[in-house]
Amino acid sequence: MANKLATTSLLAAVLLALAAPSLAGDPDMLQDICVADYKSLQGPLRLNGFPCKRPENVTADDFFSNALASPGSTCNALGSAVTPADVRTLPGLNTLGVSVSRIDYAPWGVNPPHVHPRATEVIFVLQGSLDVGFVAATATGGSRRPPRNSGGSPAAVLSAFDSQLPGTQPVAEALFGASPPVPTDVLARSFQVDGGLVEAIRSNFPPK
Amino acid sequence: MANKLATTSLLAAVLLALAAPSLAGDPDMLQDICVADYKSLQGPLRLNGFPCKRPENVTADDFFSNALASPGSTCNALGSAVTPADVRTLPGLNTLGVSVSRIDYAPWGVNPPHVHPRATEVIFVLQGSLDVGFVAATATGGSRRPPRNSGGSPAAVLSAFDSQLPGTQPVAEALFGASPPVPTDVLARSFQVDGGLVEAIRSNFPPK
Amino acid sequence: MANKLATTSLLAAVLLALAAPSLAGDPDMLQDICVADYKSLQGPLRLNGFPCKRPENVTADDFFSNALASPGSTCNALGSAVTPADVRTLPGLNTLGVSVSRIDYAPWGVNPPHVHPRATEVIFVLQGSLDVGFVAATATGGSRRPPRNSGGSPAAVLSAFDSQLPGTQPVAEALFGASPPVPTDVLARSFQVDGGLVEAIRSNFPPK
Amino acid sequence: MANKLATTSLLAAVLLALAAPSLAGDPDMLQDICVADYKSLQGPLRLNGFPCKRPENVTADDFFSNALASPGSTCNALGSAVTPADVRTLPGLNTLGVSVSRIDYAPWGVNPPHVHPRATEVIFVLQGSLDVGFVAATATGGSRRPPRNSGGSPAAVLSAFDSQLPGTQPVAEALFGASPPVPTDVLARSFQVDGGLVEAIRSNFPPK
Amino acid sequence: MANKLATTSLLAAVLLALAAPSLAGDPDMLQDICVADYKSLQGPLRLNGFPCKRPENVTADDFFSNALASPGSTCNALGSAVTPADVRTLPGLNTLGVSVSRIDYAPWGVNPPHVHPRATEVIFVLQGSLDVGFVAATATGGSRRPPRNSGGSPAAVLSAFDSQLPGTQPVAEALFGASPPVPTDVLARSFQVDGGLVEAIRSNFPPK
Amino acid sequence: MANKLATTSLLAAVLLALAAPSLAGDPDMLQDICVADYKSLQGPLRLNGFPCKRPENVTADDFFSNALASPGSTCNALGSAVTPADVRTLPGLNTLGVSVSRIDYAPWGVNPPHVHPRATEVIFVLQGSLDVGFVAATATGGSRRPPRNSGGSPAAVLSAFDSQLPGTQPVAEALFGASPPVPTDVLARSFQVDGGLVEAIRSNFPPK
Repeated sequence: MANKLATTSLLAAVLLALAAPSLAGDPDMLQDICVADYKSLQGPLRLNGFPCKRPENVTADDFFSNALASPGSTCNALGSAVTPADVRTLPGLNTLGVSVSRIDYAPWGVNPPHVHPRATEVIFVLQGSLDVGFVAATATGGSRRPPRNSGGSPAAVLSAFDSQLPGTQPVAEALFGASPPVPTDVLARSFQVDGGLVEAIRSNFPPK
Repeated sequence: MANKLATTSLLAAVLLALAAPSLAGDPDMLQDICVADYKSLQGPLRLNGFPCKRPENVTADDFFSNALASPGSTCNALGSAVTPADVRTLPGLNTLGVSVSRIDYAPWGVNPPHVHPRATEVIFVLQGSLDVGFVAATATGGSRRPPRNSGGSPAAVLSAFDSQLPGTQPVAEALFGASPPVPTDVLARSFQVDGGLVEAIRSNFPPK
Repeated sequence: MANKLATTSLLAAVLLALAAPSLAGDPDMLQDICVADYKSLQGPLRLNGFPCKRPENVTADDFFSNALASPGSTCNALGSAVTPADVRTLPGLNTLGVSVSRIDYAPWGVNPPHVHPRATEVIFVLQGSLDVGFVAATATGGSRRPPRNSGGSPAAVLSAFDSQLPGTQPVAEALFGASPPVPTDVLARSFQVDGGLVEAIRSNFPPK
Repeated sequence: MANKLATTSLLAAVLLALAAPSLAGDPDMLQDICVADYKSLQGPLRLNGFPCKRPENVTADDFFSNALASPGSTCNALGSAVTPADVRTLPGLNTLGVSVSRIDYAPWGVNPPHVHPRATEVIFVLQGSLDVGFVAATATGGSRRPPRNSGGSPAAVLSAFDSQLPGTQPVAEALFGASPPVPTDVLARSFQVDGGLVEAIRSNFPPK
Repeated sequence: MANKLATTSLLAAVLLALAAPSLAGDPDMLQDICVADYKSLQGPLRLNGFPCKRPENVTADDFFSNALASPGSTCNALGSAVTPADVRTLPGLNTLGVSVSRIDYAPWGVNPPHVHPRATEVIFVLQGSLDVGFVAATATGGSRRPPRNSGGSPAAVLSAFDSQLPGTQPVAEALFGASPPVPTDVLARSFQVDGGLVEAIRSNFPPK
Repeated sequence: MANKLATTSLLAAVLLALAAPSLAGDPDMLQDICVADYKSLQGPLRLNGFPCKRPENVTADDFFSNALASPGSTCNALGSAVTPADVRTLPGLNTLGVSVSRIDYAPWGVNPPHVHPRATEVIFVLQGSLDVGFVAATATGGSRRPPRNSGGSPAAVLSAFDSQLPGTQPVAEALFGASPPVPTDVLARSFQVDGGLVEAIRSNFPPK
């Protein structure tokens, strides 16, 4: 046991590799239990967040998920996989203002710079060894190490958020894969490169 | 790897084994970084929470802890050990409103019924198999399984909280180990037992 | 008049007789008035909290209750009665984040140790003389006097909460009267007593 | 007893007699207890709110006040007296976000129209019979009855707030007694009266 | 350009000319976008705030308004016009907790003393020169200059609020134009004038 | 006047050109006025936010700034200038949770994609014509037009935030100008370009 977790480390990072902290926005708990009622998505009213299942329909399974038990597939360009357990898949989290994600890394895999617009984050290393850091709004100081698997074996972390739905916005994809697109000249001027290069990068992020 | 985490499960529980949910109380993030300044505890002003280290004194180590890398000792009456990583030991968590704890269980160990007065909680099973549940304020429904190691091997979980200092109050100890003591007749009437029995239980919880 | 209130005292107690403070969770007031629409409970959507009556249906009576005008009956095992005036019975309190309860005590009556999962509390003594205290999360210090009627005459208090629905969880009932039950061995290990005693106490709290 | 409280009534009013509701602004509870340290007012740092006494200096008296035990004197132009028990006088209320006030009324006494800028309010009638109401932001509907003692005997209420320091701003005094004064022509145009009348009313509110 | 904005000034005022600050009450952002669904007002459920349009129905126009592009008409008794751009007219503001208003002033026009029950405010002077101030809850200090156009030409400001629906309650109208009316004797005693004068002022504020 | 503002438009945008919304984090207003005490920055305690000036030291100037009266210089690579009026320069904004910024644009100038980690935003066009948009966390939909001056004359906007210190993080600078730097291979993999290109872009953002 001791061996297995010997490389476990804990990092308190507001945002991995990019952004400044934002405050969680889940302040509402007005009753004991408000298990998310997913069926409401078919109804006429779409709430900010989820309404509650009727108490008589709540079951123990509403509070349980095994989605994080197995590693996600890291066979992709980034060599990483994010598996969230948030209010969209674990209905018992509704109104609780807390959630977790599992991130798996292939050797040398990268979880690209991103922001969580509605949450702060703390990371627990489940396996392996990682370089992790964040960039404060001043763009100076504050980072420890960059965000990637720093070893030759798979790695995994558990991220805890102070929001039931933290949201995730990978920065490169947001800039170059948005639809409708951010205009070429805006990106060119922002990165201080020419428009051809912007177009070349954009071709890496086809609209979904 | 797959094997090791095969029994990993995720439970969204407001409070383990006892109590009703409470809303996290950490709403303050007024600047990019506010690493807890522990030296302030020697000064004349004691704040609600912690003041911040001067930016020039912040280091990467303020955001890192290996306190959770090894299992806590479970050689005690309960067969369990709680190791928190909150703002008291991980100063970078200050004003972030999030923290984690590691709980280790000996075979059949128990984390006794408790409340977290300033946080909601979600649990990730690191190892082994556990019975986990909570009691809603109505004392009916809502629980999945009781809180203890349900298997013959060690178990461990990671608890995530939406507070940088969730607080923990084990109920039995709070009732029978408080100093000054809760009067015997109050406890007798509450549990509907006689005073001699209250005194007998109290002797199990010597004042610290 | 002076005589009648001569023993009136005010105690700021986070939680009577047991627990640590929790922060109120009622942050939503997005419009002038949102009187709780109880009829919505028959509809398909169950909200976290209550939706609002249409303005044209709001009446002055929505803001008034005489439920606290008379003492509750204290002819019970505890010698006390809690009468809440919260958003479930006083619809005008919806979204206001405040409520009150009246607690009546027979001579030597006890309001058993409990937690309010969504509120802090301050107590105003309406009549009589009471011993009141609370147990902080550290289980040390902080209490003034235990929670019971300390005199030979009836007593009454008004409790004010910073929540429109504070919730109340009597601890003994939560532990020994939960359904499904908290397992006997968990309670035995927590209180450090044998299982037979747990069963005996449990028989005092039949499932509702 | 029943007689004594026979006229007791409960009114949920956002603001007595004038204003629209405001949300309480007391969201900070970062630790178990933070009893207000009044001595800090002599120090160099003035906080938003109060810092905490050192735990070893906290006493049971910090949580108790008898300031509300006796009626305030109503021998004044309004025939009413407000006695607050908030964080300025009851230090244990610090960070709890709740407080109470006692208001006594001479026969036909009036608590003039006012706003509480940081709190919502619910009123419990301790004695007598009162006309109470509020004016919503739309200036239409929402009121029950005007704010004054409606009977020939003294009356008293207890007001509960969802703030440890709700603040109180009597409207007439704010408009006509401010220092420096609100210009005469502004008040004249607002009330659609001539400037001489403004000056006459202002003479009723000498600067303090 | 420099000329045009030469008299531009910025004033941070909690509340123009009257009242003490209140904290914004818009804490809910549980998802990326929740554009207000105005059609829900015809449905059976009336929420606190607005539900969200279905994502497929959201358009760019939901985030745009030209209502503030032109000055409002100041041909009225006060010589001023308030044009709000809040969640009632700009649906993209829903759950964002921010809004703006444009206030135009005729020469010597006045925006009468008022409170915003759910917001703090900061003012940017678009054109002209204004006297602006506020009255703190203590009715002393804190004000700069009274609220009116201090020059002989039209003026305009933009007010920013930390609420998507700040609400506005002009004090004189609230007191003298409420329906049902605030009783004459209550107003007479509050302003320390006789009842005839109260009735005279009231006649300036016919119920709407 | 009408002419001058004829092209004025209002856009409710969570974040200009890049990012998803974040909730404002300024929940603390515990007293009437808490003007920021900048002298405290020389003292031993560094707070999260600012402490308050003593009331006797508060002046009307604490609530006024003319920093936004003149356009900022747009003679730079981006052709734009951001001039904030937040709690760092306008001390009266402390604890109010609201602030504004002025952004000036040269013809075809660009305010590069950025995030505000602690605020939502609404934009009022002071002069000229702009293309403005934002990218939601899903990177699809939600945008109206890209962020730049769309005309041949200078333009200017006023941005309002629901935070007294919203923070601003230009994305390109955060990624390529951070110190210590985000590792080349992390950026290369994130943008799916080669390392040489990353180094080339990085040379445009020398560490400050």
